[in-house]
Amino acid sequence: MRLSQFHLHTSKETPADAEVVSHQLMLRAGMIRKLAAGLYTWSPLGLRVLRKVEAVVREEMNRAGAIEMLMPSIQPRELWEETGRWQKFGGQLLKIKDRKDGEFCYGPTHEEVVTDFARSELRSYKQLPLNVYQIQTKFRDEIRPRFGVMRAREFLMKDAYSFHVGADSLAETYQAMYDAYARIFSRLGLHFRAVNADTGAIGGSASHEFHVLADSGEDAIAFSDTGDYAANVEMAEAVSPGPRPAPTEAMHEVQTPTQKTCEDVAALLDIPLVRTVKSVALVGEPGFVLALVRGDHSVNEIKLAKLPGLGDYRLATEAEIVDALGCEPGFIGPVKPARAITVIADRSVAAMADFVVGANRKGFHLGGVNWGRDLPEPDQVADIRNVVQGDASPDGIGRLGIARGIEVGHVFQLGQKYAEAMKATVLDENGKAQVMHMGCYGIGVSRIVAAAIEQNNDANGILWPEPMAPWQVAVCIINPKNDPAVVEAAVALYDQLQSAGLEVVLDDRGLRPGVMFGDIELIGIPHRVVVSGRGLEAGTFEYRARRSPDSENLDMATLRARLGLA
Amino acid sequence: MRLSQFHLHTSKETPADAEVVSHQLMLRAGMIRKLAAGLYTWSPLGLRVLRKVEAVVREEMNRAGAIEMLMPSIQPRELWEETGRWQKFGGQLLKIKDRKDGEFCYGPTHEEVVTDFARSELRSYKQLPLNVYQIQTKFRDEIRPRFGVMRAREFLMKDAYSFHVGADSLAETYQAMYDAYARIFSRLGLHFRAVNADTGAIGGSASHEFHVLADSGEDAIAFSDTGDYAANVEMAEAVSPGPRPAPTEAMHEVQTPTQKTCEDVAALLDIPLVRTVKSVALVGEPGFVLALVRGDHSVNEIKLAKLPGLGDYRLATEAEIVDALGCEPGFIGPVKPARAITVIADRSVAAMADFVVGANRKGFHLGGVNWGRDLPEPDQVADIRNVVQGDASPDGIGRLGIARGIEVGHVFQLGQKYAEAMKATVLDENGKAQVMHMGCYGIGVSRIVAAAIEQNNDANGILWPEPMAPWQVAVCIINPKNDPAVVEAAVALYDQLQSAGLEVVLDDRGLRPGVMFGDIELIGIPHRVVVSGRGLEAGTFEYRARRSPDSENLDMATLRARLGLA
Repeated sequence: MRLSQFHLHTSKETPADAEVVSHQLMLRAGMIRKLAAGLYTWSPLGLRVLRKVEAVVREEMNRAGAIEMLMPSIQPRELWEETGRWQKFGGQLLKIKDRKDGEFCYGPTHEEVVTDFARSELRSYKQLPLNVYQIQTKFRDEIRPRFGVMRAREFLMKDAYSFHVGADSLAETYQAMYDAYARIFSRLGLHFRAVNADTGAIGGSASHEFHVLADSGEDAIAFSDTGDYAANVEMAEAVSPGPRPAPTEAMHEVQTPTQKTCEDVAALLDIPLVRTVKSVALVGEPGFVLALVRGDHSVNEIKLAKLPGLGDYRLATEAEIVDALGCEPGFIGPVKPARAITVIADRSVAAMADFVVGANRKGFHLGGVNWGRDLPEPDQVADIRNVVQGDASPDGIGRLGIARGIEVGHVFQLGQKYAEAMKATVLDENGKAQVMHMGCYGIGVSRIVAAAIEQNNDANGILWPEPMAPWQVAVCIINPKNDPAVVEAAVALYDQLQSAGLEVVLDDRGLRPGVMFGDIELIGIPHRVVVSGRGLEAGTFEYRARRSPDSENLDMATLRARLGLA
Repeated sequence: MRLSQFHLHTSKETPADAEVVSHQLMLRAGMIRKLAAGLYTWSPLGLRVLRKVEAVVREEMNRAGAIEMLMPSIQPRELWEETGRWQKFGGQLLKIKDRKDGEFCYGPTHEEVVTDFARSELRSYKQLPLNVYQIQTKFRDEIRPRFGVMRAREFLMKDAYSFHVGADSLAETYQAMYDAYARIFSRLGLHFRAVNADTGAIGGSASHEFHVLADSGEDAIAFSDTGDYAANVEMAEAVSPGPRPAPTEAMHEVQTPTQKTCEDVAALLDIPLVRTVKSVALVGEPGFVLALVRGDHSVNEIKLAKLPGLGDYRLATEAEIVDALGCEPGFIGPVKPARAITVIADRSVAAMADFVVGANRKGFHLGGVNWGRDLPEPDQVADIRNVVQGDASPDGIGRLGIARGIEVGHVFQLGQKYAEAMKATVLDENGKAQVMHMGCYGIGVSRIVAAAIEQNNDANGILWPEPMAPWQVAVCIINPKNDPAVVEAAVALYDQLQSAGLEVVLDDRGLRPGVMFGDIELIGIPHRVVVSGRGLEAGTFEYRARRSPDSENLDMATLRARLGLA
């Protein structure tokens, strides 16, 4: 492509309303342009990158045996009523009335439509497993669209859905999709982690998220510093720190007149925060519950809710706290409650001795508290906290680090949830109707573009991984209007590199070198070759890799080698 | 692709609600499945064909210098207000409110969005001409969606928009697009005509429609039986039939008590319809106007409205007719009106002698009427009728035939209409702001698939032109479950043909030969090769072209030659 025949529109100014670097750079490079909140036009430059991602996703989906199809973006309400999601999906669902007052939505996802397709087209177990996918525009009416295409309302997604008789077949396809996702992100040149994820509201039995690691990521990921383990922080298991030491102190009351938090109490007493215990008062099926975590830890609500009888737990009201413990919040603890309560201790708390807790007396805490002596052993010991940096990895290999990640892919075992609701069955080998098992597998194609920039940028602009770059090589002509020999040499090089299979852009716009180089760096072309009169005389080209600080003058043979050509 | 790994879902039954053959065959072949009125899922089979069309369109657009981009499907009301189309576009515009009560539409076309893009990105004449396109999902809320994807509500369109300083540059790009369109439809193997079209409500100065010819087409096209001329029937010029003969009859009144139409009068008088003249009463700037066309012709309202003073003409009311002619409708004519009127005669009528018209007296017509003798020469002679089969071609070459066509492409010179309304300007060489000229160029990508089937089908199914076929060759295995040698030979052939660059599908499903052949014919694979035990013994393959009634037993070398391989 000759840039003079293309449409490039860069800008030096950082747009005021762009908070994250990918949004800033995509606007400055002219990859996208805002049409309205959460709606972006992909310019020719932006689309080149988007299509690169799309192509890799498509190739790997096909390789994994998924079959491409295309479903409408507009979906009838009736199908969403069958799964109950017309109401449950919430405000992100863009609801639409057509000219005949028929109700529709702009699909934020396609479980209903694809399950309707499957129940019409599939009759027999012989047709299964079936794994279909599409690369298609979705709409989610985000309450606060932001970060450009990272959290846009209209976006490009690859969504795949698999259908099975039985959970084993589902698990097999799930693994194939997991592997395909790993290949996709590897091929795109991204640093990523596949993490165990909570299936949350979508339901189902297994789920992994694929995160591109970047400091600006919205999600926290725990991963082993030496092993393979990785999980969403909310899902990562906090293991037991080892046996409980023997008591060394007697229990004693300390005055803490205004100190209601562990931090304040530790500061007042001049002790490490890890010696304090935080008491969280809940109400669940067992009645009043005190959940205990170490002062430096935080309660994990998802883990709590998975304990028996706490599926629908809620925080206790102040009145309930006073009733059960005889004290107002801020000074509460498990020692000598006003009446019988249930105590659930985090594994770390169960392993503590000589700890500090609220005294159930206003303005006082207790120090030197020990299990079995000053209060009964906990009713239940469980993992109820979020992991922190430095925790032992739950697989026993190394310690956990915490990184930020941008979720770009998600694989789910949905099980029979949708198929059951929509009565999607096939006949098995015995002629008996079986509700199908389903998996669903999403990739945020447009989001990957932004995530890659978050991970790969410097002060001058984007640093594309080669497989995502709009072009791999830029051939820049110095002073094309006044030097026909230079133009001729540059065009010859451009033709030669293109013939060798490289994607090359020829900057023949005739801009001043500084402006030209600024553009090429901003848009992140991995390899830059400058053709100038001086170079021609010396028989060299000036080469610079985008990630290298220096340029080199190379003869043709060396240049070709640098570009990976024979 | 092995069919056992694909998802094919054919049906023998013709769906009751499918009126046209393409809709019937696409449903029977399982290419599409209806989700709701005018909303269709493209199955894996259907999508293969759709992508073929898309790829050819993309290649030819790129070759013609257009640059691909991607605009959102959801568009804000504000932009549509700028051009007045938020109101004017009518019920086809699907209007949407988001969660914040912001008003949007699902884009039926993108003039507003692309002009907004252009006015933001383009500053200087040096950036022009610019021709951008996208291949993207559109929505038009048809009042009566029908014929499957032929007139769907959600559909895939290629829309291009060009920007220019001056009309000459626009004309040049318009021609390049016209040529690209001709290449696209030729490459797809379709019989088509490019016809002059009325620009109608969209405005602008030049326009051509591209029609795939098929008997089921909704549009009538006039074309020369020997030359290149082609035009929409509404636009085709009706030329003068030659000099007026001399009178041979005296004018005389005839009783036509209940005969109010030319057909009825001609039948009563036992004369050819071509000897009668139809009088159509209008009101325009000149006041009361009688427009005269031959009894066998029909008035062309578009042509009428282009005459001076008739831009806003309307049909006269009965009261106005009685006032001007002294007679009620059914018996009116240009001879001796009650008061002064304007008479506009079609060219054919001006060339008539001894004709029959209403007598302006209830129950009577006049025969033997002649211009200049019985009434003054017409105030104006003009082309105001629709052409009919057998008319002379307006370019003087041959006679006109009328064919039915399906509009699949449209190129427009929009001129400055949108750019003016949206203040889209660039600075010219003198630093002066110039409103840009625009062209727009659409192709109905999904409609092409249906149009191709309308043009190419037989009793057994679809007859794909090779460039659109989901696969070029089907290799069918007879009895795969019981004959491993046959399977081995078929797989070897399949591999060989694929390696040679053909797109091949291997039918390894193990169906009965009749069912298998029925499927392969229905889905329209151009070449079928059958591998059987008997064939293996004889060293031959059974080959049949989809368009041929007979199969042949061929050795490998001959088979390869038949498939175009060396």
